[in-house]
Amino acid sequence: MKNTNETMIVDMYELPMGKTYFDTGDKDTYVYFDIFFRRNPFKGGYTISGGLDNIIDYIKNFKYTDSDIEYLRSLNKYSEEYLDYLKDTKFTGDLYMVPDGTVVFPNEPILTVRAKTVEAQLLETAILHYFNTGSLITTAAKRITNEAGDVDVIEGDINAPVMEFGARRSLNPMESAKYGYIGGCVGTSLVKAGKEYNIPIMGTMAHSLVTFYENEEEAFTNFAKSNPDDCVFLVDTYDTLREGVPTAIKVANNYLKPNGIKFKGIRIDSGDLAYLSKEARRMLDKAGFTDAGICLSNGLDEFTIAELKKQGAKFNSLGVGDNIAQPLDRVGGVYKLVAVEKDGVVSPRIKVSNDSIKTINPGYKKVYRFYDKDTNYALGDVITLYNEEIDKDHYTLIHPVDNWKKKELTNYYVRELQVPIFKNGELVYNLPSVTERREYCNKEFNTIYPEIKRLANPHEYYVDLSEELLKLKNDMINEHREGRDE
Amino acid sequence: MKNTNETMIVDMYELPMGKTYFDTGDKDTYVYFDIFFRRNPFKGGYTISGGLDNIIDYIKNFKYTDSDIEYLRSLNKYSEEYLDYLKDTKFTGDLYMVPDGTVVFPNEPILTVRAKTVEAQLLETAILHYFNTGSLITTAAKRITNEAGDVDVIEGDINAPVMEFGARRSLNPMESAKYGYIGGCVGTSLVKAGKEYNIPIMGTMAHSLVTFYENEEEAFTNFAKSNPDDCVFLVDTYDTLREGVPTAIKVANNYLKPNGIKFKGIRIDSGDLAYLSKEARRMLDKAGFTDAGICLSNGLDEFTIAELKKQGAKFNSLGVGDNIAQPLDRVGGVYKLVAVEKDGVVSPRIKVSNDSIKTINPGYKKVYRFYDKDTNYALGDVITLYNEEIDKDHYTLIHPVDNWKKKELTNYYVRELQVPIFKNGELVYNLPSVTERREYCNKEFNTIYPEIKRLANPHEYYVDLSEELLKLKNDMINEHREGRDE
Repeated sequence: MKNTNETMIVDMYELPMGKTYFDTGDKDTYVYFDIFFRRNPFKGGYTISGGLDNIIDYIKNFKYTDSDIEYLRSLNKYSEEYLDYLKDTKFTGDLYMVPDGTVVFPNEPILTVRAKTVEAQLLETAILHYFNTGSLITTAAKRITNEAGDVDVIEGDINAPVMEFGARRSLNPMESAKYGYIGGCVGTSLVKAGKEYNIPIMGTMAHSLVTFYENEEEAFTNFAKSNPDDCVFLVDTYDTLREGVPTAIKVANNYLKPNGIKFKGIRIDSGDLAYLSKEARRMLDKAGFTDAGICLSNGLDEFTIAELKKQGAKFNSLGVGDNIAQPLDRVGGVYKLVAVEKDGVVSPRIKVSNDSIKTINPGYKKVYRFYDKDTNYALGDVITLYNEEIDKDHYTLIHPVDNWKKKELTNYYVRELQVPIFKNGELVYNLPSVTERREYCNKEFNTIYPEIKRLANPHEYYVDLSEELLKLKNDMINEHREGRDE
Repeated sequence: MKNTNETMIVDMYELPMGKTYFDTGDKDTYVYFDIFFRRNPFKGGYTISGGLDNIIDYIKNFKYTDSDIEYLRSLNKYSEEYLDYLKDTKFTGDLYMVPDGTVVFPNEPILTVRAKTVEAQLLETAILHYFNTGSLITTAAKRITNEAGDVDVIEGDINAPVMEFGARRSLNPMESAKYGYIGGCVGTSLVKAGKEYNIPIMGTMAHSLVTFYENEEEAFTNFAKSNPDDCVFLVDTYDTLREGVPTAIKVANNYLKPNGIKFKGIRIDSGDLAYLSKEARRMLDKAGFTDAGICLSNGLDEFTIAELKKQGAKFNSLGVGDNIAQPLDRVGGVYKLVAVEKDGVVSPRIKVSNDSIKTINPGYKKVYRFYDKDTNYALGDVITLYNEEIDKDHYTLIHPVDNWKKKELTNYYVRELQVPIFKNGELVYNLPSVTERREYCNKEFNTIYPEIKRLANPHEYYVDLSEELLKLKNDMINEHREGRDE
């Protein structure tokens, strides 16, 4: 936990909205908000949830300081009564969320808040920032580590561990390192993440070391003398196959072997990685260094990795920076009011929109995942109203758009995806360590059919609405339609 | 200035490299490193530099704490002598950089460090992170604000100010807000950025407010009562043209007018923004609210904005989130050793690489920009060795690849782009305020020909190497070629 006060990570518009609730006497009314997203990033078939750790930290430390209030006063927009109220505001509501590392899908409630109006409204910006960041990086990392191979293999052949090397390209290095690891990387280059999150830190050497010394032989030898446990030589500074690899082998023979130092391997960071790695493998093997590994890096993503494997590239590990640390897509989580509770009655709310994709699922809801009893594969998810019972023996999945598409389930067990995080403002969740979250994520991921995970045209995972929810939604849309002057 | 110690934002491999320099007795040798990038982001014709503010903050606060050293000791890789050296390490060298907001181009030295080996090596990760973050967001914002219109117009017609609304989608909201503003946004939604950077904060209302109350009329009226200075109504919750806009007009007539409250306008956040904005404009005008503005938002980027203008969309301001706060590209700055200084002699270094784009410009260098004396437009840049003199009356630009392409310049003045930031470890640069940097950026941008700025197939700006530098580079490449066993 960072224990930092990030209360001012708030969009300006939350404040006048809060003031409106305050002024209309609705400050003690309970409302329900959901976080959900509308499509999987990277044109993929799934998303991995993240950000809960930061959300907990943020809510625990939520408090406008005197200087914050002074700044808000200086805007000349807010009454002293409202500023006093803000100053005393802390989170006293309930919050449910899927644990970090859970595989999730579009339109599912990832997080649900039940809280007083102003409290709930003020959370929006920060918790979306945390969810969007955590889930984007974890998903990017999982897509890449899944193509690279088994996340638990540290020294394998084609099942290559992925090292997250992206601090320099990240907008937020610590988050990239942490969620990259939860998403299956074996470690990070970022020393601070090693210290604070207990993540293995790793790295090789840069071109600067090679060019500092007179030649590669001098550079590799000096490095080996200083760092005998970390002898991975970067071989592409001048000419990978004609200079780099032969020099690495020469230094291994002339300095490492005689001194009993393990020649861990080489890294190639430019050029045609498939061709170079195959040739380098051949040269290393011929020289008797069959144990020396090959690390590849240079703008790798899940697609390049899949291609490298297809072309028979030889590698033992991959360094991935940009595409984990600063992924080229977004999760796009939104935070929408779904219900208002007055005098104990929970009334659903809806936003219809001219874009049909922006029409939300109304009401206070739960989301359940059905698993095959025999294979433990996830069969589909169902979003229900909060008070529905799920039959333990028989359930009919109904396609949310093509309602005639139905699937009968019988041999299953069910799990609710959201877990309680805060109850009446008290933290009731025991956040697992980063390593535990990484293991959980891996286990979760293994329950998803491979068809959902493939890079090209992934199969769409079933996320259905219960009959009750579907009826409520259709009724509310029709009500809005009928209410119009046409 | 944040005054935070971010010394541990360092890639693990810097430490064994530092140890190598330390062990070979090279710790007091001076080296020169450049930051540069290889292509403009977004397939554009330019990049705007950023990150200097954070680089200054980082270097000023550079210091391994006792607990950092304890963590490094626990890795069992580093000698006590080296750990002692790290503990005492601070930046004692020189650092030059182009000011935040400067228009820059591929392969130009953006930042140059002259420092002792270990000091210079340890900086790499953090300063790249800061430069890559700052320049990515500033460039994204400038591309968008440039399409939207003049950055200094707050209430105009088609010259629409862009408000940065991206905190929720950003991996780093404070940096997005700050660099978005420097890149020409008129303000940010992020309250913390308003407080800490003195950036104007702005916003309207969310759908949650509209759905909380029984209907739009109640929501708009309550909001107006509470926030009479901020009456911009969000009109797309149910049906923009049949409900939202008519209700906004109704509330303006029934509540705002009688109470002397200004109807500032409406925001449309979904649907066909071109069509809806034109219709909404017609309806507002017909009702006599010609002063009420239209704010558009919903995943806008520079291309959509250009299209909206082409289609005659009517808007007074734009809210842009994702494409400023979490842009879908990278700047890709790298940090490369370019020279080593021994006994007062500066010897250039080069990295050749199998990828010709990865071959660097060797040597300690300067970069100059030539301006037309009459128009003040930038004519081209020249990268030279550090000790070259630029003739004030006549200069021949030589194309760096097609050397036969030459351009004779006579009517010009010249500016060196990098400025001294640190000298012998002392800060010698007076960082301008965020607002001053925004003005500087705007002024700088106006010296660049429109051909360089266009979205489709921008003209390539001239960045040439001086004859001396070109000769040095070719000689060094040839030397490496000849040295090979072919």
